[in-house]
Amino acid sequence: MTSFQYLTIDRNPGNIYIITLSRKAENKLNGVFCQEIIRAFHTIHRELGPLSEGAVITRGSNEKFWCMGIDLEDPDPWSNSDGFYPLITTILDFPYPTIASLTGHTFGAGCLLALAHDYRITSTAKRYFSIPAIDLGLSFPGMGVLPRLKLTPQISRKMMLEAHRWTPNEALKDGVVDFVVPEGEIVERAKEVAEKWKVKSKAGAYGVLRKELWGDAGKAFREISFVHNQVVGPSKAKI
Amino acid sequence: MTSFQYLTIDRNPGNIYIITLSRKAENKLNGVFCQEIIRAFHTIHRELGPLSEGAVITRGSNEKFWCMGIDLEDPDPWSNSDGFYPLITTILDFPYPTIASLTGHTFGAGCLLALAHDYRITSTAKRYFSIPAIDLGLSFPGMGVLPRLKLTPQISRKMMLEAHRWTPNEALKDGVVDFVVPEGEIVERAKEVAEKWKVKSKAGAYGVLRKELWGDAGKAFREISFVHNQVVGPSKAKI
Amino acid sequence: MTSFQYLTIDRNPGNIYIITLSRKAENKLNGVFCQEIIRAFHTIHRELGPLSEGAVITRGSNEKFWCMGIDLEDPDPWSNSDGFYPLITTILDFPYPTIASLTGHTFGAGCLLALAHDYRITSTAKRYFSIPAIDLGLSFPGMGVLPRLKLTPQISRKMMLEAHRWTPNEALKDGVVDFVVPEGEIVERAKEVAEKWKVKSKAGAYGVLRKELWGDAGKAFREISFVHNQVVGPSKAKI
Amino acid sequence: MTSFQYLTIDRNPGNIYIITLSRKAENKLNGVFCQEIIRAFHTIHRELGPLSEGAVITRGSNEKFWCMGIDLEDPDPWSNSDGFYPLITTILDFPYPTIASLTGHTFGAGCLLALAHDYRITSTAKRYFSIPAIDLGLSFPGMGVLPRLKLTPQISRKMMLEAHRWTPNEALKDGVVDFVVPEGEIVERAKEVAEKWKVKSKAGAYGVLRKELWGDAGKAFREISFVHNQVVGPSKAKI
Amino acid sequence: MTSFQYLTIDRNPGNIYIITLSRKAENKLNGVFCQEIIRAFHTIHRELGPLSEGAVITRGSNEKFWCMGIDLEDPDPWSNSDGFYPLITTILDFPYPTIASLTGHTFGAGCLLALAHDYRITSTAKRYFSIPAIDLGLSFPGMGVLPRLKLTPQISRKMMLEAHRWTPNEALKDGVVDFVVPEGEIVERAKEVAEKWKVKSKAGAYGVLRKELWGDAGKAFREISFVHNQVVGPSKAKI
Amino acid sequence: MTSFQYLTIDRNPGNIYIITLSRKAENKLNGVFCQEIIRAFHTIHRELGPLSEGAVITRGSNEKFWCMGIDLEDPDPWSNSDGFYPLITTILDFPYPTIASLTGHTFGAGCLLALAHDYRITSTAKRYFSIPAIDLGLSFPGMGVLPRLKLTPQISRKMMLEAHRWTPNEALKDGVVDFVVPEGEIVERAKEVAEKWKVKSKAGAYGVLRKELWGDAGKAFREISFVHNQVVGPSKAKI
Repeated sequence: MTSFQYLTIDRNPGNIYIITLSRKAENKLNGVFCQEIIRAFHTIHRELGPLSEGAVITRGSNEKFWCMGIDLEDPDPWSNSDGFYPLITTILDFPYPTIASLTGHTFGAGCLLALAHDYRITSTAKRYFSIPAIDLGLSFPGMGVLPRLKLTPQISRKMMLEAHRWTPNEALKDGVVDFVVPEGEIVERAKEVAEKWKVKSKAGAYGVLRKELWGDAGKAFREISFVHNQVVGPSKAKI
Repeated sequence: MTSFQYLTIDRNPGNIYIITLSRKAENKLNGVFCQEIIRAFHTIHRELGPLSEGAVITRGSNEKFWCMGIDLEDPDPWSNSDGFYPLITTILDFPYPTIASLTGHTFGAGCLLALAHDYRITSTAKRYFSIPAIDLGLSFPGMGVLPRLKLTPQISRKMMLEAHRWTPNEALKDGVVDFVVPEGEIVERAKEVAEKWKVKSKAGAYGVLRKELWGDAGKAFREISFVHNQVVGPSKAKI
Repeated sequence: MTSFQYLTIDRNPGNIYIITLSRKAENKLNGVFCQEIIRAFHTIHRELGPLSEGAVITRGSNEKFWCMGIDLEDPDPWSNSDGFYPLITTILDFPYPTIASLTGHTFGAGCLLALAHDYRITSTAKRYFSIPAIDLGLSFPGMGVLPRLKLTPQISRKMMLEAHRWTPNEALKDGVVDFVVPEGEIVERAKEVAEKWKVKSKAGAYGVLRKELWGDAGKAFREISFVHNQVVGPSKAKI
Repeated sequence: MTSFQYLTIDRNPGNIYIITLSRKAENKLNGVFCQEIIRAFHTIHRELGPLSEGAVITRGSNEKFWCMGIDLEDPDPWSNSDGFYPLITTILDFPYPTIASLTGHTFGAGCLLALAHDYRITSTAKRYFSIPAIDLGLSFPGMGVLPRLKLTPQISRKMMLEAHRWTPNEALKDGVVDFVVPEGEIVERAKEVAEKWKVKSKAGAYGVLRKELWGDAGKAFREISFVHNQVVGPSKAKI
Repeated sequence: MTSFQYLTIDRNPGNIYIITLSRKAENKLNGVFCQEIIRAFHTIHRELGPLSEGAVITRGSNEKFWCMGIDLEDPDPWSNSDGFYPLITTILDFPYPTIASLTGHTFGAGCLLALAHDYRITSTAKRYFSIPAIDLGLSFPGMGVLPRLKLTPQISRKMMLEAHRWTPNEALKDGVVDFVVPEGEIVERAKEVAEKWKVKSKAGAYGVLRKELWGDAGKAFREISFVHNQVVGPSKAKI
Repeated sequence: MTSFQYLTIDRNPGNIYIITLSRKAENKLNGVFCQEIIRAFHTIHRELGPLSEGAVITRGSNEKFWCMGIDLEDPDPWSNSDGFYPLITTILDFPYPTIASLTGHTFGAGCLLALAHDYRITSTAKRYFSIPAIDLGLSFPGMGVLPRLKLTPQISRKMMLEAHRWTPNEALKDGVVDFVVPEGEIVERAKEVAEKWKVKSKAGAYGVLRKELWGDAGKAFREISFVHNQVVGPSKAKI
C-alpha cells in the first residue's frame, strides 16, 4: 500500500526491519527522500504497534556510499524544514532501537543522520566519516547538539571545528561508531545488535528514555522543522 | 492538482484567499482534516511565493458551526500530534495575515485554532466561544500559551479556569474577538480586514515579527508535534 | 489528628473549606506558619481526594490584617526556602479553586500570597494592598513573576516599581482584586465564589490548567524552594 | 572629563539628570551615538553611586524629532551589536528610574528605546510613534519582547504587525505613553515624574525589581549584544 | 531529639557523618523513608552550620543491598513527589561532600540516588549496579539528567537504554563508581575519601559549585518535587 | 593607532597573531586589562575582516605565569562585569581559531580564560593549572559551564570540587590541555597548530559552529556581562 521511490523496507524474522536507502548512488538528502524515510519509519511503527519487540536497521544500497549529506540542488526552499530536520526528530522519537549500518562514506548531514541512530556499525573498508560544514561555511541552528551530546568534548570539537575525516578504526577509537567489523559483515552484525536490543522496546519506554538522554537534540531540530516563513539552514548560498 | 476532501479554497482578487472548512456540519478536527488545512495553507503560500501581498480568511460552511473542537472519535493515536498541533504551528508560522471568520460556534480546540489567527471576526447571531476543557478533564502541554499571550490575565483565567461561554458582544468586550458585525456580514468584513493588512506581508517579515510576539506558542506546539513515542493530549480517556 | 498552632480549618457544606490564618494579629509569615498553611492545604487535598468538587478560602482572624508579609525576625536562615516559597508553589499547584478573602491589610509577601490564589475579594473598609520591597531594598529571584503574569504591564509596574498602596476600590479598578463588597460581607461573597467555581475541579484538570497559565510563577518559586546551600531572599540584611 | 559629541548631560538639583540627545536633527542611532548614550548612563551611575535618590530624563534637542531609529548608513557591521543592543540592556539595567521625554517623532528602534525607559511622556503637538519594521522587512531576534511585555496583547499586535502610527492621545489611550501634556511642558512634567519616583532607587533594588518584570527583554538583547562572528539584525539589505 | 525509624546517624571524629540506611533488607524507597533521609541530611547540616569542614557517607545495613529502588507498594500517590524527588535535590544541594558506600546491590532509583552523591565506592564482592526502567516501562521526567551529566555518552546509553548490569570492576572502568576496594573495606575507604575532601566545604561554596556542574539535574528534580495536582512518575501501572 | 598598556600584538606571516599578555608578572585580570584583551581581539578581527584565514595565539610575557586569575584589588565594582565576563564571550565569539600558549602558571579565572580558547598548549616545565575557588569560597553564576562542556564529568568534578592542581602531563592525560611540548617550544608548537587550523575560518562559520558546541557558556557569561545594578561574582568579600 505504501510505496517508495528511493528506499525499500525488508521485514526480517523477529521484527528486524532493514531500510535500504537508494537515492542515486550517493543517497544525498533532498526533501522527498527525507519524507520517504520518515514515512518508512512511521510505516514500521504502525506495523509493530506500541508494545512490541523490534528494531530498525538503515543501510546504503552500494559499497561506496551510505549518505553524502544534503542535496543542495533541491530547488524547494523548505526541503530541509520539511525533510531533513523532521527526519532527525522522527528517528530520535522512534520507539524502537535504531542501527545505522554505515556501508559507505558518511558525510555532512549524513553524519548527523547516523548520530541520530542508537548504534553505528561500519567495516574496515576504506571510507570516511566527516562533517565538512566548517570548510563550506554551512550551518543551521542546532547542528552541533547531536555531536555535543553523543561524543566527548574533544571529539565533538574534532568533528565540528576540524572537520576531521575519520577512518573506520579511528571512528571506533573516538566513539563515533560503535563497532567495526570485517568488510561484508556489517549488516549481519547490525542484525545481531538489533536482535540483542530489540527486547528493550517491549515495555514501551524506549523513546521516552532516549529522549531523557538526547532530548535537547530533538528539541533543537523541532524548533527548525516545518518553518516556512523563512529559509533555515544550508543552501548553496552562504548564510 | 491539490484536491481536498473537507475544504475548498477560493482565490479572490488581490490575493485574498478564503478557506471554507466543511467537515460534516461541525468541523470537528480529526487528523486528516487538520492535515488538509495545513496543506491548504502551504498551497496558498506556494502560490503567493515569498514577497507578495496577500491574506487568508478561514470560514465555516454553515451558519451554525465554525469549529467544534477535536474529534475524539478519530482512532489514530497520533491524530493530534500529526494534525491539530502542527496545524497551529503552521498558522502561527504563516507569512501572511490570517483572519478567522467565526461564522458559528467555536469550541475547545476550535477556540485555540481561532486564537492562532491574527484577527477574529464574528457577528451578533446567537453563538458561543468557549473552551470547556476544565469540565471534561482534558489538557495537553502548552494548551494555555495562546490564551495567556493573546488575552489579558483576567480573560485568560475566564477562558481556561472558568470555561466561560462568550456571546459575540462579550467576546468583543473581552478582546477575544476583534470585530462583531451584523449577521451575514462576517465574510465581507473579513475581506476588508484582509485587504487592509495584506500589504504588511510584502516585505517578507510578517511571520518573523508575529513570532516575536507569540513565539512561545509556536514553541509549545512544536514540542508536541509529530511525537509518536507516546500519545500526547486529549483523548476520550482522561489523562 | 493534624493539629495547627496558627490556623484553623473549617469544612463547610459542599466541600467549601475556610482556612483562618491567625498568627498573632498580623499573620506575618515565618517558617513554621508557612509550613502549617502548606499542611492545611495538603490535609484538605487528602480529604477531598483527586476528583471532587471543592474549594478553599483563606481569611484573616481579625478586621485589621490579612497578612503583613514575611516575618523578618525568624532566626531560621531557611525559613523562606522551606516556608514561604513552597507555600506559593503549593497554592499554585492545588487542584481546587482558591479564594483569598482579604479581610485586612495585605502587604509585601502577603500580596504575593494573595496573588497566588485564583480569586481575591475584599471590602470597602479602609485597608491597603501594597508591596513595599523597593523601599526596603528587599527582593528574591522570581518575586516579580506573579505580578507580571496576573496583572497588566502598567499595573505590575505600579506594584513593583512604585510600591503603590491600593485602596480596595482602586485595587478593583486595576484588577488587583476581583471583587469589593460591603464591609462584613467578604467571607459570604467568598463562599458564593467558591460555590460557583468548585465544580471546575471535578474533572481533575484544575491544577494542570492553572499551571498552563501561571506555570512560570510555580517554576520560579520551585527554583528557590528548599535551597539550603545558601540563603535566598529577604532578610533583615540587605542583599 | 567625559566629553560627548552627540549629547549633553545636565544635572539638576535633587539628582535629576537630563540627557539631551543631539545627533543631527533626527537622532538616528549609529554605533558611536549609542555608545555615547551608554557612557552617559554609566557616568551618571558613577556620580550617583549605589544607594542614592536619582533619576534620568532623556530628551531630544529640537521640537521635531526624539529619535528616528537606527542609522542604516553606519558602515560598521557591528554598530547594532556594539551600540543599539547594549544601549537597551544598559537602560533596562540602570538602577535609577528613567523617563523618556518624547519631544518629537519616535520611530523604529527609537520606539524600542522609549519602551526601555520606565516612563514615557509626550505632548499634544503633532507627532507620531511607530515601528515600521514590517513595512521595511527589518527585524532582529528579540525585537518584539519589549512590546509584548510592556503593552497589552492587542496593542503589541498593533505596534508590530500593523505598524500603527500613534498620535499622542492615541498613544496615551493605548498605554504606549504614560502622560500627554500641553506642548512645551514635556520636560517640566518629566522632572515632576522624576522627582516623584527618584526616592524608589534609594534602597538599591530598582534595577533588580525592574528586571523581575522585564528581565526577558534584557536577556533577549544581551543574547545579541557584542556578537561579532556574524551580523545580527537590521541592515540595508533584507535578512 | 530527632529520631528515625529507618536509619541511624553516626558522627565520627572530624565531622565525618555516616548515615546507615536500614529499611527492611532492601532499602526500597518509600515516601517516609525518603523523608527521613532528607531529614537526616538537614539534621547534619544544622549541626555543622554554614562554614565547617565535614562530609556525609551513606551506607546500607547489610552486605547484600545498598538500595533496591522505589518501593512500588507505597500506597501514597505522592510518595515520589514528596519523597524520592526532593531527596535527590537535597543531596545535590547539600553543602558538604557526599559519599555513597555501595555496600550491596544498587538498582533503579537507587542508582540515581548513588549518582546524586559526589563519590561512589564499592567492593569486589558480587553485586550489581543497574537501572532496569526500560525493561519495566517506568520513567519520570528528568530521569536521565544525572546519567547524562555524570557519565560519558556511551555509558549513559548503556545505563538508560541497555539497562546494563554493572559488576564492580566494570563500573569502575566505566566511571559509574569511583573506587573498588577489597570486600569489607568500603566504609573505611569512604572515610578516607571523606577525610580528604571535607576541607573543601569550609569556605561555603561546595553546594554552589556543585550546582554549577550538575545544576540541570537539581532543576529537573525540583520541577517534579511536591507536585500534588497529578501523579508524576513510576507507579505499578505503566505510564 | 590602537595602543595597549598591558599587551602587545605581533602579526606573523600567514595571519598568525600573537597576543603577549604582560600586566605585571602575574597577568592578574583587572577591568582595564580585560578590556584591552577584548580590544586586541577586535583589532585583529577588523584587520582580518570576515572571510580570511587566520588564528590568534595568547601567551604570557615570562616563564613563570600565564595568568593568575582575577585581580581582587581592582576597586571598580564592575571590573568583572565590564571586563572578565565579556572577555570570555569575546573569545568564544571570535571567528578565528584561538590557541592558549600556557607559558606559566594558570590559576582561577586564568583557567577559565584558557578553557575559552579552542586549544591549550603547555610544556613540561614545572607549573600548575588549577581553579582554587572552592577553597576561597568564590563563585559567580555560570562559572562551571566551561569545565562542564569542555571536560569529561569526572575531570570537571576534579577541577571544580577538588581544586586539583594539574601538572602539565596530568593535564594532558585529563584533556585539560591538548599538547605538552618540551620547555621552550610552546609558542612554536602553537604556531603550528594555528597554521594547521587557520584555514577553517575562511568560509566564515568558525564562530557559528563553535557556538553550536559551547554556546551555553557564552550564554552564561553574557547573562552577567555589563550588569551594573548589582555586583556579580568574586570579590574580596565572600558572597
